[in-house]
Amino acid sequence: MSAIDKPENPAVAESAFLKACRREPVPHTPVWFMRQAGRSLPEYLKVREGIPMLESCMRPELVTEITLQPVRRHGVDAAIYFSDIVVPLKAIGVDLDIKPGVGPVVEQPIRSRADLERLRDLTPEDVSYVTEAIRMLTAELGATPLIGFAGAPFTLASYLVEGGPSKNHEHTKALMYGDPELWADLLDRLADITAAFLKVQIEAGASAVQLFDSWVGALAPADYRRSVMPASTKVFEAVAPYGVPRIHFGVGTGELLGLMGEAGADVVGVDWRVPLDEAVRRVGPGKALQGNLDPAVLFSSREAVEAKTREVLDAASGLEGHIFNLGHGVLPTTDPGALTRLTEYVHEQTAR
Amino acid sequence: MSAIDKPENPAVAESAFLKACRREPVPHTPVWFMRQAGRSLPEYLKVREGIPMLESCMRPELVTEITLQPVRRHGVDAAIYFSDIVVPLKAIGVDLDIKPGVGPVVEQPIRSRADLERLRDLTPEDVSYVTEAIRMLTAELGATPLIGFAGAPFTLASYLVEGGPSKNHEHTKALMYGDPELWADLLDRLADITAAFLKVQIEAGASAVQLFDSWVGALAPADYRRSVMPASTKVFEAVAPYGVPRIHFGVGTGELLGLMGEAGADVVGVDWRVPLDEAVRRVGPGKALQGNLDPAVLFSSREAVEAKTREVLDAASGLEGHIFNLGHGVLPTTDPGALTRLTEYVHEQTAR
Repeated sequence: MSAIDKPENPAVAESAFLKACRREPVPHTPVWFMRQAGRSLPEYLKVREGIPMLESCMRPELVTEITLQPVRRHGVDAAIYFSDIVVPLKAIGVDLDIKPGVGPVVEQPIRSRADLERLRDLTPEDVSYVTEAIRMLTAELGATPLIGFAGAPFTLASYLVEGGPSKNHEHTKALMYGDPELWADLLDRLADITAAFLKVQIEAGASAVQLFDSWVGALAPADYRRSVMPASTKVFEAVAPYGVPRIHFGVGTGELLGLMGEAGADVVGVDWRVPLDEAVRRVGPGKALQGNLDPAVLFSSREAVEAKTREVLDAASGLEGHIFNLGHGVLPTTDPGALTRLTEYVHEQTAR
Repeated sequence: MSAIDKPENPAVAESAFLKACRREPVPHTPVWFMRQAGRSLPEYLKVREGIPMLESCMRPELVTEITLQPVRRHGVDAAIYFSDIVVPLKAIGVDLDIKPGVGPVVEQPIRSRADLERLRDLTPEDVSYVTEAIRMLTAELGATPLIGFAGAPFTLASYLVEGGPSKNHEHTKALMYGDPELWADLLDRLADITAAFLKVQIEAGASAVQLFDSWVGALAPADYRRSVMPASTKVFEAVAPYGVPRIHFGVGTGELLGLMGEAGADVVGVDWRVPLDEAVRRVGPGKALQGNLDPAVLFSSREAVEAKTREVLDAASGLEGHIFNLGHGVLPTTDPGALTRLTEYVHEQTAR
């Protein structure tokens, strides 16, 4: 039972996904896929036709439809709220857009103390479409849990400081190393915005949250601990009173898994580079793990997919709580049929 | 003394760089930078003006000038032969080009057994400009050692199979997982080509070699061991009789460091994500380490650069052999002055 009351179908709490998050025995290993809603599905491309990405995140009916599509098609054990990492920034008035083939582009990057003023607090009214969409979604989803979604402070900071996607994060790191005080204030402000955004989702009915720190794998552990962990911890602490499982994931974070757990995650997501039996040693006891089939494996034969999936399940066999997922988002040209078969295969192989 | 005779200035063997590779006491920690020759230097941009990348790799005078530029400017302890990973493939007739802003593009990707026929053996005559350039270079370099350069089989395979640079290596992995026999044959052929290319460089006067496996960090350890290590090992064994130090580097390879050493490297390059004191635990005894300042740190203040450099030197203080380098290539917009100051700083701080 959650510490703060929120709407919930009682069957949701008994779902395999939430049981695995709580490290309780499960009828089968639950499965969902990062980016399961999106470009790999023809029905997604159809409903998105002519609608820019950011606009699609602000239309409750469309968000509901897109979020439900992979649940209907694949029979996955959880839905993930369809949104984009920059939605809360857009909602507080940051001048940004998502350019097709590029990603989020910020008109005026944030690089000085004066720029911080542009990051005001986020209120539920700023994202009323989120509340509306989640109420519709939970009504439709029945016993299937909905995972709330937000980008973590470091990744948001990288977009804001670079002005767009970046391979090397030069400006971000220059600020982080060169002006640690301004950096800390920037991340603290982003932590508040992120926490507020997740709270809206939980209060509307999300049963878990995933904090994505897409780019944090660009940092060494000492820098993560010093310059990022305080802000990520603040986000996790802010949502702790709701008692919903908190998932934390970033790609290329093999060196950071222990610290990302320490920051306050109940479930640590692992990319495909670190076998789960090694990941559990790094994360330590008391946390569930999520992952970690290489999404590129899905471009191979059915036999190869099953063999690699068995490797993941074998490495996970000693875990207290395991949520099966890819080790990164579904790649855009993935055959959706391969995802459906993978879901069935994991369910079959792990049925108790 | 090398097991096979090759031209060498006797002072080269006593250089700080080669001593560190051999894990012998050094007068100071030697320094060089991956991509030290190239886009960060105005004198490079000047001599390259109007000359396409691949063509510039085939003009001995130009290669000599470009390779010498960073040695002159920064006073680094080693030169690295200016080339590109795809040069040996071009030399055997693969239809490829380096497109500005994109990277190597292969006209017809390799995806079937019949395609393998296009990868014939490389002979010294195919790359006579390399022999010529290295002879000129070693004459100019005096006591400064020259490092030979080649891309490793996995990274070459990725370019050939994808047809160009790739973020997710889907086609490469589909082949690797889906047709292990064809994959092994492809990598074996690339190992022979790479070994032949390195032999040419050593015989012309290179005092060490670095095998770059730029993309191999995309693999989990079990896949590396099964599908890549045999080919990389073949390359290292082929050049072993020359007795020159063999350096091996890939970015994002924290999980692979031990295996990359095992493949036959004398020096393991480490990116900035893994502190050197942790890297030495993964690599084990009997190998030197190279690295590992985050190249993005150079966009920060001088104080920040020095503080982060001290962290690297402190983490390296227990190593038997340490070659200071960045944890990845010099970023194109790096201030060259920052690299000169960094070289001086490491020399000062480590002078014995």
